[in-house]
Amino acid sequence: MSAVDDLILISVDDHLIEPPDLFAGHLPAKYLDQAPQLTRREDGSDVWRFQGVDIENAALNAVAGRPKEEYGLEPQSLEEVRPGCYDVHERVKDMDAGGMLASMNFPSFPTFSGRLFATDDVDLSLALVQAYNDWHIDEWCGAYPGRFIPMAIPAIWDAELTAAEVRRVAAKGCHSLSFTENPAALGYPSFHSDYWDPLWRAVSDTGTVVSIHLGSSGRLSIPAVDSPPDVMITLQPMNICQAAADLLWSRVLKQFPDIRIALSEGGTGWIPYFLDRLDRTYDMHHAWTQQDFGGRLPSEVFREHFLTCFISDDVGVELREKIGIDNICWEADYPHSDSMWPSAPEELGEVFARHDVPGDHVAKITHENAMRWYDFDPFSHIARQDATVGALRQRSAGHDITIMSRSRRVLTPDEKLAQFRGRAERAVAAAGR
Amino acid sequence: MSAVDDLILISVDDHLIEPPDLFAGHLPAKYLDQAPQLTRREDGSDVWRFQGVDIENAALNAVAGRPKEEYGLEPQSLEEVRPGCYDVHERVKDMDAGGMLASMNFPSFPTFSGRLFATDDVDLSLALVQAYNDWHIDEWCGAYPGRFIPMAIPAIWDAELTAAEVRRVAAKGCHSLSFTENPAALGYPSFHSDYWDPLWRAVSDTGTVVSIHLGSSGRLSIPAVDSPPDVMITLQPMNICQAAADLLWSRVLKQFPDIRIALSEGGTGWIPYFLDRLDRTYDMHHAWTQQDFGGRLPSEVFREHFLTCFISDDVGVELREKIGIDNICWEADYPHSDSMWPSAPEELGEVFARHDVPGDHVAKITHENAMRWYDFDPFSHIARQDATVGALRQRSAGHDITIMSRSRRVLTPDEKLAQFRGRAERAVAAAGR
Repeated sequence: MSAVDDLILISVDDHLIEPPDLFAGHLPAKYLDQAPQLTRREDGSDVWRFQGVDIENAALNAVAGRPKEEYGLEPQSLEEVRPGCYDVHERVKDMDAGGMLASMNFPSFPTFSGRLFATDDVDLSLALVQAYNDWHIDEWCGAYPGRFIPMAIPAIWDAELTAAEVRRVAAKGCHSLSFTENPAALGYPSFHSDYWDPLWRAVSDTGTVVSIHLGSSGRLSIPAVDSPPDVMITLQPMNICQAAADLLWSRVLKQFPDIRIALSEGGTGWIPYFLDRLDRTYDMHHAWTQQDFGGRLPSEVFREHFLTCFISDDVGVELREKIGIDNICWEADYPHSDSMWPSAPEELGEVFARHDVPGDHVAKITHENAMRWYDFDPFSHIARQDATVGALRQRSAGHDITIMSRSRRVLTPDEKLAQFRGRAERAVAAAGR
Repeated sequence: MSAVDDLILISVDDHLIEPPDLFAGHLPAKYLDQAPQLTRREDGSDVWRFQGVDIENAALNAVAGRPKEEYGLEPQSLEEVRPGCYDVHERVKDMDAGGMLASMNFPSFPTFSGRLFATDDVDLSLALVQAYNDWHIDEWCGAYPGRFIPMAIPAIWDAELTAAEVRRVAAKGCHSLSFTENPAALGYPSFHSDYWDPLWRAVSDTGTVVSIHLGSSGRLSIPAVDSPPDVMITLQPMNICQAAADLLWSRVLKQFPDIRIALSEGGTGWIPYFLDRLDRTYDMHHAWTQQDFGGRLPSEVFREHFLTCFISDDVGVELREKIGIDNICWEADYPHSDSMWPSAPEELGEVFARHDVPGDHVAKITHENAMRWYDFDPFSHIARQDATVGALRQRSAGHDITIMSRSRRVLTPDEKLAQFRGRAERAVAAAGR
């Protein structure tokens, strides 16, 4: 058995595509006809239709097992994506084939912060948030105990309601909240307002990690509307440094010392530089900016509060002790375009081998840190010897992992680029730039 | 003699505060009364007044030799800053005391891209740009041959005029152009427009480095108006990754293979991660984004075109070979608040010692790369044995480097923070967010 077969992999950042029957059984009956509906458009794609808006399922969000030539932003139908995107039974088979013991799944169509559900009708909005969370925790994660780290979405428009929701779902064992990189960018009070104090109190009381995913500010990293798509793809992970700095220097961490934040899909290789920069900023400027961490350096404060996550990050693994070996988790990003599914374990194994990472560090990065940060114990459901990459893959023998082509016509590269440009223009216009 | 004494230091990023007599002798007489005027305000600070706007000299821009408690954004008078900020003779004495052989000086009040001079009167605008460049190259740099790398500012509103100016100053030996991180953010065509092609042709023909300083997009790295100042100070250097990605993936480098770009004050520690991210983006996405570098990886293309710069960057020095040992220059940032003047050589020496950096690497980082990139040869004016930290400091014995306090009342910390908040609000409003 190779070292890769022996790995136990928990991914702290994957994604699900919501299935059409999501709200049935969870949303009060009186709201069912107002709920978002998965709708087939004339072009053959499925969109979530809600209050006059169509939310497309961009192809880059569900390209696992797809030829790279077919990547792009084309809206897709459910039939065109791997069933593992939206069907939990198929998802677990894909996880087995990818050697992944457990996974935390971020939402898709409601956005990372659930802001789609922020409507003028507060009762409807809260009902949607709660139904989503109940579906996700009880139905999706509940179907396979030990295979999913449950995660809730906030009632982003209201700190008190979000706090109450955090407490409600924590009682069911959910210790992760998907939140935004920057509430101010969404039109809500910033991290520096005391508006969010009820939320900080709730996550502190319940041991809930605030999981902040790249892109959750709603602002894209696009220097200009005509920047090529590669620019945005390159920049998005590191852009989460803005949220990290904004929270690190805020009053919040000083006042709520138990808060923990995950920088989901943010990568790790830039963190050692970032920590040096934090400490230098403190050294040069705290005398006038009045920053006071009780004698600690900001880099130490960072390690008390922040979890970093990587998919395949050579520099981050090499410099893991400068980041903090207890502050790094692996992630798979299935089924997004950064995912290496189903061969992520081999890629990870190569990085570990290249840097002679000792076994205790491998264990922390691959699963122990995830278990501790998210208060998650898969081994109460699954025996250790059944949890390894090798064991999971053995069990999944026969599951089809063939690369599948799209059934409809694939756009030409020029059509794809034009589509990206349209997105960029709408995003820049929406940001008021 | 210690290793520090033996260093030969050329800094590729320092700043000057313009002296009041800047335009005299360089601007045609008919424009002199329309030129910006250094004006003493009632509060005792000096501002450059131009077309109804006052440009303050924020204290953080000239804090060399000032107690850290006095850092902040207070506008200052010339008497309150070190004469080395605005008087070239005093500057050279400060350079000697700081062990610095040579220095490239970015502009202050016209902004890094000279956009203050973009007025409705094109003739006046061009006259101001040319007068500024003539003063800087002939008078400031010309006073001490071998001590300054000359740098020009663009006629930012016009690519053809900028191209002509690049050719004009290149004929006088100037091979550096201060430009913007993002022309689109200033309201001009983006890097992706062919509008700038005359400029790219001119810098290619003349071997001119496009020196892009952090902050030159005019957009501050402020997540929210109430973010503490430490957030912006932490984020600004790494934020230059946006310009790096925008240019790297652009058509420009493919079409103009001789273009070279410096990421001034951008730091180096995040670059290895960034290069990995570029290559991964290429690997996963080029099939649909149509990126084609003729078989090379984007990280290779980066090393052909980009110079990176650091003040004191432990991670960058450790990972120097992942960045490219020919792509790293040291910088001092005198007299800004990141500068360690006059003890920068000792700090740099410690970083080199900590990572056992061999002599040939030290030579490249401290001066050889700067000489090659900027086509600058100090040794045709100054003998090598007179150019070392030790020799320069010996010559400067007696020059006063005492830390000086401000003569006027220093603002209280709360007043300083309120002042920063005002700046942030104006910046965010100006950016239309």
